[in-house]
Amino acid sequence: MIYADNAATTKMSQTAIEAMLPYMQDCYANPSSLYTAGQEARDAVEAARETVARCIGAEPREIIFTSGGSEADNQALLTAAAIGKKAGKRHIVSDAIEHHAVLHTLKKLEQDGFDVTYLPVDGSGIVKAEDVSAALRDDTCLVTIMYANNEIGTIQPIAEIGRLCRERGVLFHTDAVQAIGHLSIDVQDTQIDMLSASAHKFRGPKGVGFLYVKKGIRPAVLIEGGAQERGRRAGTENVPGIVATAAALEEAVSAIATTAPAITAMRDRIIDGLSAIPHSALSGDRMCRLPGNIHLCFEGIEGEALLLLLDQKGIAASSGSACTSGSLDPSHVLLAIGRPHDVAHGSLRLTIDETLTEKEADCIVQAVKDTVSYLRGFSPIWRDLCEGKAAFIL
Amino acid sequence: MIYADNAATTKMSQTAIEAMLPYMQDCYANPSSLYTAGQEARDAVEAARETVARCIGAEPREIIFTSGGSEADNQALLTAAAIGKKAGKRHIVSDAIEHHAVLHTLKKLEQDGFDVTYLPVDGSGIVKAEDVSAALRDDTCLVTIMYANNEIGTIQPIAEIGRLCRERGVLFHTDAVQAIGHLSIDVQDTQIDMLSASAHKFRGPKGVGFLYVKKGIRPAVLIEGGAQERGRRAGTENVPGIVATAAALEEAVSAIATTAPAITAMRDRIIDGLSAIPHSALSGDRMCRLPGNIHLCFEGIEGEALLLLLDQKGIAASSGSACTSGSLDPSHVLLAIGRPHDVAHGSLRLTIDETLTEKEADCIVQAVKDTVSYLRGFSPIWRDLCEGKAAFIL
Repeated sequence: MIYADNAATTKMSQTAIEAMLPYMQDCYANPSSLYTAGQEARDAVEAARETVARCIGAEPREIIFTSGGSEADNQALLTAAAIGKKAGKRHIVSDAIEHHAVLHTLKKLEQDGFDVTYLPVDGSGIVKAEDVSAALRDDTCLVTIMYANNEIGTIQPIAEIGRLCRERGVLFHTDAVQAIGHLSIDVQDTQIDMLSASAHKFRGPKGVGFLYVKKGIRPAVLIEGGAQERGRRAGTENVPGIVATAAALEEAVSAIATTAPAITAMRDRIIDGLSAIPHSALSGDRMCRLPGNIHLCFEGIEGEALLLLLDQKGIAASSGSACTSGSLDPSHVLLAIGRPHDVAHGSLRLTIDETLTEKEADCIVQAVKDTVSYLRGFSPIWRDLCEGKAAFIL
Repeated sequence: MIYADNAATTKMSQTAIEAMLPYMQDCYANPSSLYTAGQEARDAVEAARETVARCIGAEPREIIFTSGGSEADNQALLTAAAIGKKAGKRHIVSDAIEHHAVLHTLKKLEQDGFDVTYLPVDGSGIVKAEDVSAALRDDTCLVTIMYANNEIGTIQPIAEIGRLCRERGVLFHTDAVQAIGHLSIDVQDTQIDMLSASAHKFRGPKGVGFLYVKKGIRPAVLIEGGAQERGRRAGTENVPGIVATAAALEEAVSAIATTAPAITAMRDRIIDGLSAIPHSALSGDRMCRLPGNIHLCFEGIEGEALLLLLDQKGIAASSGSACTSGSLDPSHVLLAIGRPHDVAHGSLRLTIDETLTEKEADCIVQAVKDTVSYLRGFSPIWRDLCEGKAAFIL
């Protein structure tokens, strides 16, 4: 199998697996236990917290381990909402292409009396910092803008948004699930107040993530119970998962300088190859883009059919987000960047990592070309387009 | 190390680890992905769901995988609260010795306008079914009573409470974190509507749990986002953890018939040995008790000092709950069964599994006897008691 769906999930790194195993078999004690074995587990959790903090320029006590990116997003938004409520501020600024972990939580907050401004994005999916600035009100308690988009890979002007939020005294949260481990991130430089991450997106384990919350901000509690994570997230710590998360993140972050340029070059090779397909268009920004993300729309085909045929050829790809697979609605991200419904249905996302060879990249390009052409061969929409009964958009 | 703290957490079973590994290394795809590898991961999750359901007499669609017992407890209570709110019912019946994952969530609900009746327990920690019955009101939306207590091991009359809740049309939730895998549980026989479980308490992985929600009850969503778990719990499924949970639960449940009597016999051997210590008392019910739970109070000593000295002798034990370790407050459970503060501070919990040998059991008894005696040797409280300046309670 050529795995080209690393934005959906990644293969765990061997380093992470090896870091994890001792905490399942030998050092399995509960970190809240007072005896030696418990304290060894506690030390492992705290060492992991230090590593994670160091990877993003934070302090250890600013890291809360969670069960994943969705939980972190939920907790971040509830934190800002709780602080906002107390201060009588009930306005939130976000954008149209956030992940559903953010969008659905915002919807819940709207039901609870919050007013949310969803900023538009431009044709390549970029949120303009001046739009954020213009949207800020006296009662704005939070700006939440993702670091990089999970479907089209567009990277947002996070440092610029961070700076203006800090100037205006508004909390700034970013869902960095797709960015962490793939881009160098420093929460100080970018003036981020809260950041969500998911370990399985950077070759760590599934079921673990973390939320960075800048010191001085009191996190709301999503899961009530014991005093774990300094009372900010109850439940026995997932020691093996937390240790593996730190190992994977450290490995990914320390490799970025070498892997990112290589992945970017391979990404561009595939984008160039696929862009030769007639009536296709790259989605997202060509430059402000995650190293491994390739996303195109092809007119006259159904993305799902394309995926299933690629699967038969041994290529694992996606039409957009794994979290919304199976849904018949077109992607909210593609609609937001101005793709019409029909075009949005013909989407393909390939997300590659550093293990992809040139030969595999070329194999993907050829397979996509062949399959798009094959599918168009019996697509009534394509026939109409070719016969001039409908107008090409791309 | 003699590990006698299985209520805090357990060593993962080899079966569970072996079940888990392939899903970290080979079959690592996202279960929401449409291609073959994704569907293999999906199949693994659904097979695990079937196994878990079978182990408690439920249907697969009644199982929601969570990040642990605390999350499951939170979700269960929010579910009942949401249903209650809609029906104008804002009264909840619980008891004084629940886990903090329940108690703290109840406190949150009280702030949200719910009225909670905390039933007392008798001297052995049992909630009387007639007290539950008497507490039910027209506006009661939930009864939440734990299956077995995490500190003193007392098993509640769950089937009786379940029956009366069903008769009165009130939802019944039980935190079965300490019971699952150690007692045979059938949600049909006991008429349980919701049940919380944590995998690491039955030799499964940390960071995974599940919530059983009887069909027909619409679960409230605690973590918003993707459509995973049929829209009832967002976040990429922890496939390795879920698979390992099912493997561990199946192994534990199928062994109960042989392990439970053996563990019970060993438990009673230790209880008999330790009860010979003067001015000590068993906490909890002697019969309605988890097979592996031994809990005593010793007058004139500090539980923490006892633990640390036992640790030096290579014995891992607890004073009560790992979730509240480090807290200076005496256990709310011990206060609820009528132990005065001073006595409650001198507590010891040993929770054993089937791997404990007779030799190890006897070693524990001797070590506790020696250590209690040693500590009393320089305890001013003990001296006062012996000199008649204070009265013995036990």
